[in-house]
Amino acid sequence: MLINVISKTIDYLHFCKKFKLMINESLINPESIVIVGGSNHLNKPGGKLLSNLLRGSFKGSTSVVNPKETVVQNVKTYKSVEDIEFTDLAVLAIPAKFCLETITTLANKKKVKAFIIISAGFSEVNEMGIELEQEIVKVIEAVNGCLIGPNCIGILNNNYQGVFTTPIPKLDPKGCDLISGSGATAVFIMEAGIPLGLTFNSVYSVGNSAQIGVEEVLEYMDNNFDNSSSKIKLLYIEEIRNPVKFYTHARSLIEKGCKIAAIKAGVSSAGGRAASSHTGALATSDEIIRALFRKTGIVYCSGRAELITIGSVFTYKELTGKNFAIITHAGGSAVMLTDAISKGGLEVPEITSQSADDLLEYLYPGSSVANPIDFLATGTADQLGIIIDYCEHKFDEIDGIIVVFGSPGLFHVANVYKVLNVKMDICKKPIFPVLPSIINAQKEIEYFLSKGRINFPDEVELGKALCALYNTPKISDNKIDATLKIDEATIISTIKNAKNVFLTPPQVTPLIQFLGIPTTNGALVPPIEAAKTPTQESGFP
Amino acid sequence: MLINVISKTIDYLHFCKKFKLMINESLINPESIVIVGGSNHLNKPGGKLLSNLLRGSFKGSTSVVNPKETVVQNVKTYKSVEDIEFTDLAVLAIPAKFCLETITTLANKKKVKAFIIISAGFSEVNEMGIELEQEIVKVIEAVNGCLIGPNCIGILNNNYQGVFTTPIPKLDPKGCDLISGSGATAVFIMEAGIPLGLTFNSVYSVGNSAQIGVEEVLEYMDNNFDNSSSKIKLLYIEEIRNPVKFYTHARSLIEKGCKIAAIKAGVSSAGGRAASSHTGALATSDEIIRALFRKTGIVYCSGRAELITIGSVFTYKELTGKNFAIITHAGGSAVMLTDAISKGGLEVPEITSQSADDLLEYLYPGSSVANPIDFLATGTADQLGIIIDYCEHKFDEIDGIIVVFGSPGLFHVANVYKVLNVKMDICKKPIFPVLPSIINAQKEIEYFLSKGRINFPDEVELGKALCALYNTPKISDNKIDATLKIDEATIISTIKNAKNVFLTPPQVTPLIQFLGIPTTNGALVPPIEAAKTPTQESGFP
Repeated sequence: MLINVISKTIDYLHFCKKFKLMINESLINPESIVIVGGSNHLNKPGGKLLSNLLRGSFKGSTSVVNPKETVVQNVKTYKSVEDIEFTDLAVLAIPAKFCLETITTLANKKKVKAFIIISAGFSEVNEMGIELEQEIVKVIEAVNGCLIGPNCIGILNNNYQGVFTTPIPKLDPKGCDLISGSGATAVFIMEAGIPLGLTFNSVYSVGNSAQIGVEEVLEYMDNNFDNSSSKIKLLYIEEIRNPVKFYTHARSLIEKGCKIAAIKAGVSSAGGRAASSHTGALATSDEIIRALFRKTGIVYCSGRAELITIGSVFTYKELTGKNFAIITHAGGSAVMLTDAISKGGLEVPEITSQSADDLLEYLYPGSSVANPIDFLATGTADQLGIIIDYCEHKFDEIDGIIVVFGSPGLFHVANVYKVLNVKMDICKKPIFPVLPSIINAQKEIEYFLSKGRINFPDEVELGKALCALYNTPKISDNKIDATLKIDEATIISTIKNAKNVFLTPPQVTPLIQFLGIPTTNGALVPPIEAAKTPTQESGFP
Repeated sequence: MLINVISKTIDYLHFCKKFKLMINESLINPESIVIVGGSNHLNKPGGKLLSNLLRGSFKGSTSVVNPKETVVQNVKTYKSVEDIEFTDLAVLAIPAKFCLETITTLANKKKVKAFIIISAGFSEVNEMGIELEQEIVKVIEAVNGCLIGPNCIGILNNNYQGVFTTPIPKLDPKGCDLISGSGATAVFIMEAGIPLGLTFNSVYSVGNSAQIGVEEVLEYMDNNFDNSSSKIKLLYIEEIRNPVKFYTHARSLIEKGCKIAAIKAGVSSAGGRAASSHTGALATSDEIIRALFRKTGIVYCSGRAELITIGSVFTYKELTGKNFAIITHAGGSAVMLTDAISKGGLEVPEITSQSADDLLEYLYPGSSVANPIDFLATGTADQLGIIIDYCEHKFDEIDGIIVVFGSPGLFHVANVYKVLNVKMDICKKPIFPVLPSIINAQKEIEYFLSKGRINFPDEVELGKALCALYNTPKISDNKIDATLKIDEATIISTIKNAKNVFLTPPQVTPLIQFLGIPTTNGALVPPIEAAKTPTQESGFP
């Protein structure tokens, strides 16, 4: 692993010198798109992708290559790629075996510099597929072009929606950037997030990552980061082929104010086997991934539900401390949430000030303000507003507010959610809404989401997400040692001297020390009997 | 804690001698119900409860007491409880201050033996409320009656739906029995479970548990358990006032084949404060609860989402081993699920038999049968059927099957879910369905649920639930020592001899040994210096 990391470091250092960015403007914001394999069949990827594109926000020109049709979906249709005019972006939805020839024509004769291959049947299948993929990448890189896929659903952003799947999420410049090593997983993440109110700025399905993987998308986002960029990145990763590139750009984005949550799948040995057959990824141990994420400042997630909850938390105002007020009309939810928050290292401090007594006077008898603030099943919208005002202005010890408010089905709670929505705008402290009554208050929750809000239907899942975020080291906790200088020549010569890929302990130790990794004193010993003396010297049993 | 447990044991032993069961047939299956405080206002508890009752399955006679109305919701209405005829069950939805007088009349003059008090304003509010509650219980116990509440939503079962809340879940004799110390939490659990297909056999909202708490409901279920009983119990608990009773009946139910999952809220100190203000519960440490649950065989849950997922797993066929086959057309979900299952101690073994090679021939090129069995985005319903047949009949190493099948939105997947539904009936091995496309396949999922199925929309949440279940000790692992005889007299005399509530070490040690709790050798020593010799004798540092 260490050798792998170091050799990747070297690759990357060389790479940076050239500074050849893969993703180009033609991919991100094309003026013209050709769909090779676009058809009238909306139950096939080429047909559906064209349909999504035409129904979306794309303002440029669209054309289709399809030898069997004259006009496809009312779009200019060519019999062959030989016939097309210049286009910024080509999307291929044709069998794998035709892709190399098609791309060669497009790249060399038509000067196309951006490609998306939807088709499967490449490196995920067999050796021949790997070769085919490599050939295609060579052709594209020879013209300084870029490639998304193959074996992916495509990409979508505010400029165009180039995916063959539904749903197309609500596009929002402040929404999530989703980068996924699995197309279906990207779809399922959107399907799980959209009903909660989650919006998206872009979705990149990188598929087999023949040229562009999750790392390269992060690199592009980092190098092109500006005030208009979304600050929320959600990742589904099956393989980190270049950990240094991944670390460098993810960390840089976080330093620029971004928040990143990620699933790295394939961290168990069985999961690694699964990932390998899926996108050809290699297994990585969970410990290494967790360490990498901690070091980078990425919030570790193990599944879609977690990723979406964390992503939703990212959309809210930032928490500046660890103390929560929990406001509720439903005691049980507040008790479970208090447990979840306390277990995870955050706090629900008791509120005992004079202000608390003052607040109590506005509430019905039997209410409690000790925190959780329970204003009873009969609590009103007005009372909620007053409680939030107290939390915002009078209870200085409170850093964040969670409001749990559902409905037993007796009356509408729209007025409560209106007050909540206004307070969420006005208050400086973040307010997280838990609206659990997805049946009884369905319409009121729809209203709330229509205001651009995201709901957390389960209080404990929210509590766990807040704690996961809190327990991910901030970059300020985790500064890189600026005095550490990497001497490329030493690393290269050490690795070159390695016999049979393995480094001997005397070779490894200087490398480890050189990279600034703290170590205990080591000692090289012959078989077990000889281990006694150095063990005693170390002072440990 | 120990003294508390022991003294509860004694209470319970005394109690068992009398064997006076609290819950009676009038509460469970009344022939007549009077709603005191029933009204025409459907936005008030008394009005809505009556409405729910009238629209539900109740076959008996319903009447109302309301001094201000002549006829309420077309039901026979009395001005005063003095005027009513005999009734099996009285539900009170009137202010707390009127409850004692009303119940005294009903119990003493009208021979009513079952009561539900919906109203709040009792022990959860103040000392006066505690006294009022105790007075009411005295009156009811004097006539050998039973009481649910106060401060609850009521109860519902197949006989009648006596709650003031919606939704009323689909009633199913094989559905869950839900017992909740919080009415709103019961509602939110139903709201979260119903959309997934979860059904209910009964819901008990025990509120302040003035007389009947979660333990007493379990006791009733245990003592009345027969072939027609549901075997699934979901609990939301804020206080276990009688751990011995809880343990005895929960364990007995599990020995009879029941499955129990529970949330014990208020396990952190802040959570304990929250629970105390909610239903007057005392805090219990998380470790004690986890130990109690493990000993009893109850699956520990920390929130509603977990409880519902575990409850849903309970409804499926029982797993007889630890080896899963994961069948999918969407690689990413299978990778995450494989990780989740492997991390939790279950296994996704590699399948390498000749049968595996045979199966591969039925699938499209690029499919993998090594497990996960990935039959690609283009996989068909027929192929799914064949794969499941192989898992059921040919792959002997497989104990359970998980099928992850969503939709990218290109075509309908109803035929896939039909095959899945049939196989779930026919196969002996349990098959768990993960249908993640809650948007793209909404209608097909509705069809699937209409067949009485429950969906797991998130594969990792299912994986975690399966592991939580697997890691909860089976009762066979955990037999009580039948030779252990509790000598009540010794326990009582020891406790009576305790000075200032504390037991000295020489008093505690025999008690601990007596209860069969294994201990290391102890030694009583004066201050720290003197501790050296016995420490050395113990052989530990």
